[in-house]
Amino acid sequence: MNTFGNSIKITVFGESHAHSIGVTIDGLPAGTVIDSDYVQSVLDLRAPGKSDTSTKRKEPDKVEFISGVVDGKTVGNSVCAVIYNTDIRSKDYSDLIGKPRPSHADFPAIVKYGDNYDIRGGGQFSGRLTAPLCIAGAVALNILEKHGVKIACHISSVGYISDSSFDVLENEDELMGKLNAMPFAVIDDACGEKMHELIKEVASAGDSVGGTIECKITGLPAGLGGPMFDGIENAVSRAVFAVPAIKGIEFGAGFEGTDLYGSQYNDAYYYDENGNVRTKTNNAGGICGGMATGMPVIFKVAVKPTPSISLSQDTVNLNKKQNDKIQIKGRHDPCIVPRANVVIRAVTALAILDLMMTEGNI
Amino acid sequence: MNTFGNSIKITVFGESHAHSIGVTIDGLPAGTVIDSDYVQSVLDLRAPGKSDTSTKRKEPDKVEFISGVVDGKTVGNSVCAVIYNTDIRSKDYSDLIGKPRPSHADFPAIVKYGDNYDIRGGGQFSGRLTAPLCIAGAVALNILEKHGVKIACHISSVGYISDSSFDVLENEDELMGKLNAMPFAVIDDACGEKMHELIKEVASAGDSVGGTIECKITGLPAGLGGPMFDGIENAVSRAVFAVPAIKGIEFGAGFEGTDLYGSQYNDAYYYDENGNVRTKTNNAGGICGGMATGMPVIFKVAVKPTPSISLSQDTVNLNKKQNDKIQIKGRHDPCIVPRANVVIRAVTALAILDLMMTEGNI
Amino acid sequence: MNTFGNSIKITVFGESHAHSIGVTIDGLPAGTVIDSDYVQSVLDLRAPGKSDTSTKRKEPDKVEFISGVVDGKTVGNSVCAVIYNTDIRSKDYSDLIGKPRPSHADFPAIVKYGDNYDIRGGGQFSGRLTAPLCIAGAVALNILEKHGVKIACHISSVGYISDSSFDVLENEDELMGKLNAMPFAVIDDACGEKMHELIKEVASAGDSVGGTIECKITGLPAGLGGPMFDGIENAVSRAVFAVPAIKGIEFGAGFEGTDLYGSQYNDAYYYDENGNVRTKTNNAGGICGGMATGMPVIFKVAVKPTPSISLSQDTVNLNKKQNDKIQIKGRHDPCIVPRANVVIRAVTALAILDLMMTEGNI
Amino acid sequence: MNTFGNSIKITVFGESHAHSIGVTIDGLPAGTVIDSDYVQSVLDLRAPGKSDTSTKRKEPDKVEFISGVVDGKTVGNSVCAVIYNTDIRSKDYSDLIGKPRPSHADFPAIVKYGDNYDIRGGGQFSGRLTAPLCIAGAVALNILEKHGVKIACHISSVGYISDSSFDVLENEDELMGKLNAMPFAVIDDACGEKMHELIKEVASAGDSVGGTIECKITGLPAGLGGPMFDGIENAVSRAVFAVPAIKGIEFGAGFEGTDLYGSQYNDAYYYDENGNVRTKTNNAGGICGGMATGMPVIFKVAVKPTPSISLSQDTVNLNKKQNDKIQIKGRHDPCIVPRANVVIRAVTALAILDLMMTEGNI
Repeated sequence: MNTFGNSIKITVFGESHAHSIGVTIDGLPAGTVIDSDYVQSVLDLRAPGKSDTSTKRKEPDKVEFISGVVDGKTVGNSVCAVIYNTDIRSKDYSDLIGKPRPSHADFPAIVKYGDNYDIRGGGQFSGRLTAPLCIAGAVALNILEKHGVKIACHISSVGYISDSSFDVLENEDELMGKLNAMPFAVIDDACGEKMHELIKEVASAGDSVGGTIECKITGLPAGLGGPMFDGIENAVSRAVFAVPAIKGIEFGAGFEGTDLYGSQYNDAYYYDENGNVRTKTNNAGGICGGMATGMPVIFKVAVKPTPSISLSQDTVNLNKKQNDKIQIKGRHDPCIVPRANVVIRAVTALAILDLMMTEGNI
Repeated sequence: MNTFGNSIKITVFGESHAHSIGVTIDGLPAGTVIDSDYVQSVLDLRAPGKSDTSTKRKEPDKVEFISGVVDGKTVGNSVCAVIYNTDIRSKDYSDLIGKPRPSHADFPAIVKYGDNYDIRGGGQFSGRLTAPLCIAGAVALNILEKHGVKIACHISSVGYISDSSFDVLENEDELMGKLNAMPFAVIDDACGEKMHELIKEVASAGDSVGGTIECKITGLPAGLGGPMFDGIENAVSRAVFAVPAIKGIEFGAGFEGTDLYGSQYNDAYYYDENGNVRTKTNNAGGICGGMATGMPVIFKVAVKPTPSISLSQDTVNLNKKQNDKIQIKGRHDPCIVPRANVVIRAVTALAILDLMMTEGNI
Repeated sequence: MNTFGNSIKITVFGESHAHSIGVTIDGLPAGTVIDSDYVQSVLDLRAPGKSDTSTKRKEPDKVEFISGVVDGKTVGNSVCAVIYNTDIRSKDYSDLIGKPRPSHADFPAIVKYGDNYDIRGGGQFSGRLTAPLCIAGAVALNILEKHGVKIACHISSVGYISDSSFDVLENEDELMGKLNAMPFAVIDDACGEKMHELIKEVASAGDSVGGTIECKITGLPAGLGGPMFDGIENAVSRAVFAVPAIKGIEFGAGFEGTDLYGSQYNDAYYYDENGNVRTKTNNAGGICGGMATGMPVIFKVAVKPTPSISLSQDTVNLNKKQNDKIQIKGRHDPCIVPRANVVIRAVTALAILDLMMTEGNI
Repeated sequence: MNTFGNSIKITVFGESHAHSIGVTIDGLPAGTVIDSDYVQSVLDLRAPGKSDTSTKRKEPDKVEFISGVVDGKTVGNSVCAVIYNTDIRSKDYSDLIGKPRPSHADFPAIVKYGDNYDIRGGGQFSGRLTAPLCIAGAVALNILEKHGVKIACHISSVGYISDSSFDVLENEDELMGKLNAMPFAVIDDACGEKMHELIKEVASAGDSVGGTIECKITGLPAGLGGPMFDGIENAVSRAVFAVPAIKGIEFGAGFEGTDLYGSQYNDAYYYDENGNVRTKTNNAGGICGGMATGMPVIFKVAVKPTPSISLSQDTVNLNKKQNDKIQIKGRHDPCIVPRANVVIRAVTALAILDLMMTEGNI
């Protein structure tokens, strides 16, 4: 299924090499302003070819709202937005036939779909389908912003190089705004340069590298979410795993926090000078019992190295039923983390918007 | 919402201090054998009071199927199973009024529910509601087993002490069977003893400690799952975050894998002696493009330290609107990991069963 | 599936001859008052043995809320309510084996479920499962009443005898209140007596008879509902067909209205003396474009004759694979309409409550 | 919500006067043949301007599959199909501002959406959105046909003129095929001519007229469906009320059957010469306990007269807050029944396909 949400229903469609890709968004309140410039700007952050470290595919990725929007506002009907595919070079994929790329979706997809799996561009498994996620996410970000909710992400690490971390106690509005405008979003510019160097290095070696993305959400009403299946962690994790290459998520102190004693881990409450209840630490990442505590929500996701590398790799030839080698040509990001950054922000917005609408906050 | 699933619908009900807790399971095929002894045995693994390291609450937790089952088989109707609460000592909670326990659900729950939040036993946020999850999960485990799918979990770490890991390439049927019968499930007994020591130590200090659980699934048909929102990672992560205290999940090489180069990370395919396609490594944790590759599925979850500790902690008094101290009395596990182990197995089974039924595998 | 609703999730469980029947209600706002006396009173209207025209089965049908309710209010968790079955006489059904009762669910149920179909009492097809619908419906009615929405039903016809109709333009609060307290709900008492006579007559002949139920909803906010799949008509019709024996539904002028010209059918708008927009007629039954117009919502459902009659009927013997005769013994209503009346009210309340919660009206 | 289905998810989008209208279909099995000629032929049956009795709007309504289909087959991804709007004359609607058309969605839509309601063409309430339903329905009809399920509809009545009825006991393959190719689908051609006369008569009087549509489904596996909320009646009724102007539905003997005694109504079983279980009558309309009996499924829907008539009507002026008159100009069908006929077939196919996929029949 390519459909997500309870109060809003997002359905992503399209394949990398089809006529177009897009998304329908059902359930938006009538009168919601659709700022297509903002949507386009979010989409542009995801676009390839933005820097020397990303693929050279220069598809413009212009979003067009073909229904549901009149004079820049929704009319209470489902919204459909499309991107017409223009830069389709299917010849790049011709020598992949029968040879599943290691750590790609190819092998299980062939088992599942047989001849119906369209290996050109990875069909529905293509990272290109994160563009419609960005469209829907941008619409969600816009609505959330109007309700005081901010979301920002940054490249927390590329390989062994780590950026500074978000402050888990403060809102950092300015920093968040700044990161949201950066195609290569890092807190510490010096780290960013080192990351660039590393990415160029692996690229020139025909290799790739992974990393992590840290996300921060502020302005959530305390109490949002709940126990069991529809808490913040359930919703956000289900959404982020829609992004190809994501292999882990941790909230607050996450895996490192499991080494701690309760007396170290627990976030003590206190009244601040304005009479607001806050916590002295935020190991919970702003979530207890699946609900927002009112402190910033913090989580981190693991992004695996881009599976497409130009180095020769061992694989099988399913047609000849024998072991084989594969060398992947074409245009591929040596590190997907910089572009995945805005996608994580987008899907997080979808999860949070759906939760807030379901609970009557919007 | 306390409801989960597409093809099966699980609804958990009950509070720690209510008449009973339980679960309805809608959508099971008619004729499904409900082995209530097996269900009880799974429930017993979760039961408190099993070892010197868990809470002394000695509630028997006997499951009773009150509908949907005739002569040990489902009749195609929804199944309802209950556990009657017998050991209710609400006086333990009397001095918590107005004072949210750090890192508990109390504070956001009070903001959300106001006076309707029943702080005794944590209401719907109580870990006790994992018992109904175990009932439904045990039913699911039973069905999956008949379709060749096995799931096992072990305590991967308690604090800084780590158990051995699963073999990510082999099935290990025997080990999995053995772990599934252990109340304190570890691969390496010596590690288990050290964990015991550590838990007793923190207990005597009035403190608590966290840990991790590793889970392995074998026998999944290659191709199960899919991209976007309903892949294996989406489904499993949404399910495990239903378990209180879970703060992270990673599949395969997870967060550590993000340091690797693609040439190191990618799992090369080869034909084994039986003509089956396998991978030489399994950094993907058996999942590519959201789909099972046919290799064992491996994931790990982070369990935070039990928030209830008997040491004095800083908190606020919401009634007096001032800072305060809290000392939590009563019976609490110094480490929830051993009992959470079977719960993770149970919810994983629910996610996988739902996926397999939705895709027509069952 | 036995599960209904978007914002609330109702799961009905139980079989006529199992330990108990009941319902879980997930999604009710915390703090909702559960008036168990009112719930019981609604259930009592459905109870058999109330009059000389209904079956003599004298099961008390006492509702018990076993979770989700503390001190008469919901705590934000799912609510579970059960009725323990006490009057189980399965011997009545022994000579039905292999012989599907005409116009019962037996035949398709046997094809579908095989030996797992529990023919005693009709398993999950038993009219007895409308009792849990009444429990959930009564909870919904209570909530709706607090939000100004009233629902009433009456026996519109039994066989060829018709009751007076609701006034489609006025609210008739008093009449609605009166009908909601009547076990044999008719507007015109004289008609009611004739219906009684007819039912007794067919009963003494070992036969049964059908009828219709008219339902009226007032107080719906204009604009509730919408086009396509989640309008009022979609939601209500999906709900009423959950009641066994319902074979048709029509809103407003319904089937008779199809003979009219647009100039006769169209409901002209006007301002009343209070400046409210009203319609001069109400052929639309208070619904245009799937949305409430603000006028009373009116619909009628068709109830087929009780299929269980004591007269000999032709059927097949599936075990002997030959034509056969069947004579149904046991206790059966010669006319199900009087008891179905409150069930239609209950399921309508479920559909409307779900719609109002989904749209943020509650 | 404009989204329907459990196993398939249909989301309709578009407004009468937007750039385009269309539908996404999520959940179709990979490899499903999409016969776009067949889809177009179904769409053509709905098209206006086919006969002297329908509106003159001559929009071509060409369907284009913009994603999910490669070489005429689905690839396992969601399918998106669009129709570009070409014949937009919004000036026709200019003098409607503030004056709700009687029995249209205008009034509740204005209350609900305020200024966001786009009265031109009725926005999302336009009958034009039944075109995307036909696209999705045609895809479903194609799949069902391959699994032996046939669906046909005919104009059962226009005003007081009734067509012959389907034979409720026989399959009538030939008749069904013939009806499915007719733009004005009637069994009895003489009746059809009288209907034509009547429609022309009301048209020339500036009026409109309603009617009924009878639908027949053959080839459903006995046992398909179930009790409670997901039986055939629930699914079909929820789907048909998505079609504007539908005000009632009855299965089998429907409302007339409520006058019968059980001994008359009950459908006796017998073995036919081939050893198949059949019923002697089919008052149940092929459905017992929400499940298919194996006999033809028969239902009828009520279609109200087209609300848009050119005669002057009373209404209110919401801007001036006073009573007013309205005279609707533009192109409108004097009787919507002939064109609604194929739409009912389409939505029925959607409901049945979803049910069959959910139950594993497809």
